[in-house]
Amino acid sequence: MKRKTQYKTKELSHTTQIRVRFVETDPLGIVWHGNYIQYFEDGREAFGRHHGISYLDQKKHGYATPIVKSGTDHKLPLRYGDIATVKTIYVDSPAAKIVFRYEIYDQQERLVCTGETVQVFVDNMGEGDLSLVIPQFFMDWKKKAGLADD
Amino acid sequence: MKRKTQYKTKELSHTTQIRVRFVETDPLGIVWHGNYIQYFEDGREAFGRHHGISYLDQKKHGYATPIVKSGTDHKLPLRYGDIATVKTIYVDSPAAKIVFRYEIYDQQERLVCTGETVQVFVDNMGEGDLSLVIPQFFMDWKKKAGLADD
Amino acid sequence: MKRKTQYKTKELSHTTQIRVRFVETDPLGIVWHGNYIQYFEDGREAFGRHHGISYLDQKKHGYATPIVKSGTDHKLPLRYGDIATVKTIYVDSPAAKIVFRYEIYDQQERLVCTGETVQVFVDNMGEGDLSLVIPQFFMDWKKKAGLADD
Amino acid sequence: MKRKTQYKTKELSHTTQIRVRFVETDPLGIVWHGNYIQYFEDGREAFGRHHGISYLDQKKHGYATPIVKSGTDHKLPLRYGDIATVKTIYVDSPAAKIVFRYEIYDQQERLVCTGETVQVFVDNMGEGDLSLVIPQFFMDWKKKAGLADD
Repeated sequence: MKRKTQYKTKELSHTTQIRVRFVETDPLGIVWHGNYIQYFEDGREAFGRHHGISYLDQKKHGYATPIVKSGTDHKLPLRYGDIATVKTIYVDSPAAKIVFRYEIYDQQERLVCTGETVQVFVDNMGEGDLSLVIPQFFMDWKKKAGLADD
Repeated sequence: MKRKTQYKTKELSHTTQIRVRFVETDPLGIVWHGNYIQYFEDGREAFGRHHGISYLDQKKHGYATPIVKSGTDHKLPLRYGDIATVKTIYVDSPAAKIVFRYEIYDQQERLVCTGETVQVFVDNMGEGDLSLVIPQFFMDWKKKAGLADD
Repeated sequence: MKRKTQYKTKELSHTTQIRVRFVETDPLGIVWHGNYIQYFEDGREAFGRHHGISYLDQKKHGYATPIVKSGTDHKLPLRYGDIATVKTIYVDSPAAKIVFRYEIYDQQERLVCTGETVQVFVDNMGEGDLSLVIPQFFMDWKKKAGLADD
Repeated sequence: MKRKTQYKTKELSHTTQIRVRFVETDPLGIVWHGNYIQYFEDGREAFGRHHGISYLDQKKHGYATPIVKSGTDHKLPLRYGDIATVKTIYVDSPAAKIVFRYEIYDQQERLVCTGETVQVFVDNMGEGDLSLVIPQFFMDWKKKAGLADD
């Protein structure tokens, strides 16, 4: 999770809220750990809508960005009815990948879970080849977002 | 759920087993009701593999068969670790639809849930039009399965 | 779905919005049919929070209200990114059950799915017996909501 | 993921098969990444049943073992209908935690995903305190499994 400092001109993040569903909790009364992957995706999608780099934006340019790596760290449980805050932080990288970090907080603003995902670029809507360079549409987005020099 | 008797020359069914996963149970310790829809699909897919009329067989002929109606009746709960038996029964119909009934039993052979789904035929892999007549590939399957006259 | 007319003094409903998640769509690009059961639950939970009769309210009185029957009718598909409106309508019944009807609309206000669920009352937090009469806390709620006479 | 060598007298692993469900695939036609967490759990549960240390065995002793950390590495996609092999490897640790590694292979025996989970011991069925020492029932299991000295 190293960042090439010269690329990073500002941190881009977005915060969204999720409400824990009944179906997301297990017999212990807490959110099943696998559902945090979904919460990360909720955060990432909200980030994408807010910052103009959603799945649908990527698709328009012919790219899919499958997840190749994910990690979660669970500190506290969430329970049914909790309203949690998901902070999604774009971690700039000079490589042809998209890295996000996540922080999930409960109503008492305690950190309950952190995590990370790494995505790559595959052209032809995911049917094609792994892109070894950052696609043009993503470079354009980075420039627009103040994350890369012109 | 009427059947045109002259079409029905035999009942086609298939039985498969599912094991209740931890994630499928809720804070009450029982299977969340929405998961029975998945168990029905597990049964329907096992039926399709066994009788040669699976999603992939349909796709090969350019058809998708989306579900337009479903129903569940819950009599007893299932719990974590239970091994349930799903009986999937093809209900023959002269209309351009696929009707299945389901019976789910627990280890003590008690009926825990029944249900039904209705599917229609949409050509062009689901991007096209609703088929008002039974597609040829499905008529062929029915004949092969002894459900329709030559 | 008959209603004893003398009990019904007004219709109780609640409307909430859901956003279709990527994970809820299938290889055909549409919402997998089983997820509508979840959308119904989203609607029912929003109704419960709004009208003071949620799972947690029921739990406080020692009752669980498992679903014993559900049904869906699919008219149009929903796709990734769609924002749908779930209207949850309480259908008053003189019997010891809770009946809800659901109507889901897309952004163009087209009806995409309807459905129904039936719940019963089980005391001792779902570990006990099926209640054959309407529990006191639910009668109190009905009165407060204007659905039953004092 | 260091192992205290003197504790490790043999590697304990278990292999199970899973069939990719329709609902587990996404609009790109591949398994949604979050479902691998479920496949890991499928593998871990099969390991637990085989080696006598399942959720229900733990529960009998009053312990829950929530997941505090997970990670996935995706190398190749899985698609609908694929039958994958999940190898679950118990990684012995002198600490009061349970560490598993996972390897998922497709039908062509290609490695599609690896991962890891870390669990801790919480007494009183997960309502109590984090156990800082290995509970007796787990020490007994380790001895029986040949993973610890008498």
